[in-house]
Amino acid sequence: MTRPHISVITAAQNASQRLADRHTPFVMNDWYVAAFGEEIKDQLLARTLLGRRLVFYRASDGRVVALEDRCPHRSMPLSAGTLEQDTIVCGYHGLRFNTEGDCIEVPSQSTCPPNMGIRAYRTLERGAVVWIWMGEAEQADLTKLPAQDWMTDDQWERSQGHLSLQANYVRLHENLLDLTHLSFLHAKSFGTPDYAKAAFESVIGDGQFALLRNVVPTTLPPVWGIPTGLTGQGQAARIVRSEFRSLGLHEVSVTFYDCHLPEATRPQYRIRTAHMPTPETATSTHYFIVHGRDFAQNDAQTTRFMHDQLFVAFQEDVDGLALQEQALASTPAEDLYEFSVAADAPAVAMRRYVLGRQQKEAKA
Amino acid sequence: MTRPHISVITAAQNASQRLADRHTPFVMNDWYVAAFGEEIKDQLLARTLLGRRLVFYRASDGRVVALEDRCPHRSMPLSAGTLEQDTIVCGYHGLRFNTEGDCIEVPSQSTCPPNMGIRAYRTLERGAVVWIWMGEAEQADLTKLPAQDWMTDDQWERSQGHLSLQANYVRLHENLLDLTHLSFLHAKSFGTPDYAKAAFESVIGDGQFALLRNVVPTTLPPVWGIPTGLTGQGQAARIVRSEFRSLGLHEVSVTFYDCHLPEATRPQYRIRTAHMPTPETATSTHYFIVHGRDFAQNDAQTTRFMHDQLFVAFQEDVDGLALQEQALASTPAEDLYEFSVAADAPAVAMRRYVLGRQQKEAKA
Amino acid sequence: MTRPHISVITAAQNASQRLADRHTPFVMNDWYVAAFGEEIKDQLLARTLLGRRLVFYRASDGRVVALEDRCPHRSMPLSAGTLEQDTIVCGYHGLRFNTEGDCIEVPSQSTCPPNMGIRAYRTLERGAVVWIWMGEAEQADLTKLPAQDWMTDDQWERSQGHLSLQANYVRLHENLLDLTHLSFLHAKSFGTPDYAKAAFESVIGDGQFALLRNVVPTTLPPVWGIPTGLTGQGQAARIVRSEFRSLGLHEVSVTFYDCHLPEATRPQYRIRTAHMPTPETATSTHYFIVHGRDFAQNDAQTTRFMHDQLFVAFQEDVDGLALQEQALASTPAEDLYEFSVAADAPAVAMRRYVLGRQQKEAKA
Repeated sequence: MTRPHISVITAAQNASQRLADRHTPFVMNDWYVAAFGEEIKDQLLARTLLGRRLVFYRASDGRVVALEDRCPHRSMPLSAGTLEQDTIVCGYHGLRFNTEGDCIEVPSQSTCPPNMGIRAYRTLERGAVVWIWMGEAEQADLTKLPAQDWMTDDQWERSQGHLSLQANYVRLHENLLDLTHLSFLHAKSFGTPDYAKAAFESVIGDGQFALLRNVVPTTLPPVWGIPTGLTGQGQAARIVRSEFRSLGLHEVSVTFYDCHLPEATRPQYRIRTAHMPTPETATSTHYFIVHGRDFAQNDAQTTRFMHDQLFVAFQEDVDGLALQEQALASTPAEDLYEFSVAADAPAVAMRRYVLGRQQKEAKA
Repeated sequence: MTRPHISVITAAQNASQRLADRHTPFVMNDWYVAAFGEEIKDQLLARTLLGRRLVFYRASDGRVVALEDRCPHRSMPLSAGTLEQDTIVCGYHGLRFNTEGDCIEVPSQSTCPPNMGIRAYRTLERGAVVWIWMGEAEQADLTKLPAQDWMTDDQWERSQGHLSLQANYVRLHENLLDLTHLSFLHAKSFGTPDYAKAAFESVIGDGQFALLRNVVPTTLPPVWGIPTGLTGQGQAARIVRSEFRSLGLHEVSVTFYDCHLPEATRPQYRIRTAHMPTPETATSTHYFIVHGRDFAQNDAQTTRFMHDQLFVAFQEDVDGLALQEQALASTPAEDLYEFSVAADAPAVAMRRYVLGRQQKEAKA
Repeated sequence: MTRPHISVITAAQNASQRLADRHTPFVMNDWYVAAFGEEIKDQLLARTLLGRRLVFYRASDGRVVALEDRCPHRSMPLSAGTLEQDTIVCGYHGLRFNTEGDCIEVPSQSTCPPNMGIRAYRTLERGAVVWIWMGEAEQADLTKLPAQDWMTDDQWERSQGHLSLQANYVRLHENLLDLTHLSFLHAKSFGTPDYAKAAFESVIGDGQFALLRNVVPTTLPPVWGIPTGLTGQGQAARIVRSEFRSLGLHEVSVTFYDCHLPEATRPQYRIRTAHMPTPETATSTHYFIVHGRDFAQNDAQTTRFMHDQLFVAFQEDVDGLALQEQALASTPAEDLYEFSVAADAPAVAMRRYVLGRQQKEAKA
């Protein structure tokens, strides 16, 4: 019976209008992960990114080609055609396109019509990941691609995976910026009860948003405890930085150490996770993940152990966010309102920033 | 080729505009069946009623708690959380809600924000059934809940069941107000050919609508013939009252007797069926049913026999109404028209009343 | 990167506005194939044509009856009722309808209300096929039904089949008017590489559109080579006429002969295929096909061989057009543009004609 007064609900709804949500159009002028490099071979791969159907392949010089997946003649998906010597032959009437999206052959006539072309996208392969600039290729802005040194550094041991999220990508960014949820959504995997109650610090900058949390002392869940050896009750420190680095990248950095050892000599164990959400549609997201650590190098068994445990937890996010999406989709507009708490400050700022980016792009 | 003249069709379409149908918003200020009491235990049950997602549980004092199934923080369904000592802990960030819908704990901070609450609904358990008032709890009006003495009377033997109807609830009320259909939709179960042709009487009051039919003499189908022993050809009288008692309750009352015996001494056998449709969405309905009889008490075999036979027939309604719903949904608007016959009078009046209720509510 | 300039895209989009496409309402005043005659028996068959739900049955005098599949009383599909002596009894309240769509019995009362009727459609059985006039029955125009002599001629050996196409019917007509696609979409079935490059001639008349292609010399694929014996490399001539004959009929006529034999004495082998698309919904089509040949009569093995090979190829069209439909449906409007090439001239003219027909009908 404690539904808030209508004036309070209206105020909350108005406040939410200033935040990006599932209704916000995508921001095209940025870098997103299109695929893991190992997915792109000398064959055609269809994938929808930001509501656009694309086709990918690896050219003979190794470059990743990304084209609009639609023949400009009669709209057949080019991914249903064939790849011949770095060109795509449409499977319908045989029109041939080069890596730039130019039509270079129309079998039923001797010349190609002018303008018979489709959009080609700028891609960039870095480490395990293929980034794509979803705006105009000429305007691809490398300064917008965050540095990810550990993702290519030999001192880091990595594993990777890909999940299909049936929810809008903004809510995944929001999820990652407030790890309070570790104690609840991940109660059975890598969360611990003390996590949600640990003191936190918000960092809110211009396009940079982070939440820092020091959980000290704490007891590590097996995924961290076993590989670090910090398995004792209340033995460990868990120092976490969860940071929105760009529309396509959220990075979680954690340092573990034995909080009973002197600071000068205690070993530190660092892990990093790159969470890379790429919108597919307004209600679905490609969720790419690279996880790394700077200890237990060349230990395949530990890599496998950690990877398996982590992906159980990431699947919990995927399941939870899908439930959230369903609730958002099926709640009548007049009944939908959300209130924020202190720990939401970075996420709210991030959502305001994303909406601002979209509005700026729409005006341009 | 006998499609009526366009002027006739237009007139029919205009007449239908005055009747509630699948496009009519729900009437919130009334009692509907939320569940059978036996469904509500000390665990969370999610169910959508009248387009709203609700979560139910039974508190330790036995009361049925009904809350909006959405955390007002980040819209996670509360039904995906956990029940702890009469409170729900959201499965996302751990916010805790009491039976009134108040947030009483936010783990990441020491106090709860004011107004962090969700709607709680008024419920009322009566006999086997849990009723819910879908409007504001403070305005719950007990005078609108029809008496159902036989549903709690020890002299009546009862059974119950629940069907999922893929159609709007108004058409189920309509179906029940004209049992002419017994001879056709239920030709293989509890209908008989003479049923449709029997004389009938309409009762049309303010919010009360009934159709009365005396089928005398008749031959009873096995579901009634066997338990009453009235198995002879043309031996029985079947006196039926089919009545819309509220938006959430239609009651069918039937009396059987041997029409060849003198009125003063012949035994009477009475059955009653409470048909309780609760809208789920505009095109789906929870269909709760309680059936009772005042004879053959404590005879479990007869109860089982009648229940099984009856639910075959009720499933025929569910199947038929789903076909009707599909036809209504897929017929182009200009081709959709309906004509009524005399036996429809109570149903037409009922549909006019339901639309009036909705319009009155919308204005308030 | 070679997406055309926005002005070019806008011009292409404007040009497409003059062509029928998946958004164009259906043209009702014409003949379409409703079914193969063998499908219509003395039982009720429900089928949706041009967005309308119909019910079919064969009356005792052999005529094919086609009625609106909706009781005008309470919208129950009549196809869920029963067929009794050339009348349909509605499965809900027992209203009875004759072959003209008139209600002739209401069981709950002694007379039928006036106007209680539904639309009956004019049908015409010709050879294996039942045609239906989807406009007003009185206006059925036999002059609009193209002659199809070979479809009833004893000198022709025929087989037939029916495919379900998940795409708009206009694109199937377009597909058939430019057989360039044989070299690509049918590369593995009955296409050959030289087909797309062969010279062609366009025929564009008022409501008649054809593309002619002489592929000489050529090597026949097995489906034609084996039955004709023209199996040699470069031995055959393949003379093709692909013609839109009406909204419901596209006919492909092919003549094969040995191009190394003197014209006066060489045998000719002719095949014909009637492609008969009937819209079901805006995005699905009943695709009826009759195939015939004037050689190897009474040779069931050849009939079976050719039929199986051909339907592999027709399924390739169905699969390809479904992909096209998906691309059309999911491409954002601003990104959707199509350019035509010379071989599209008949198809473009046909699509302009279809749109004109629809616009004319909408005005009438």
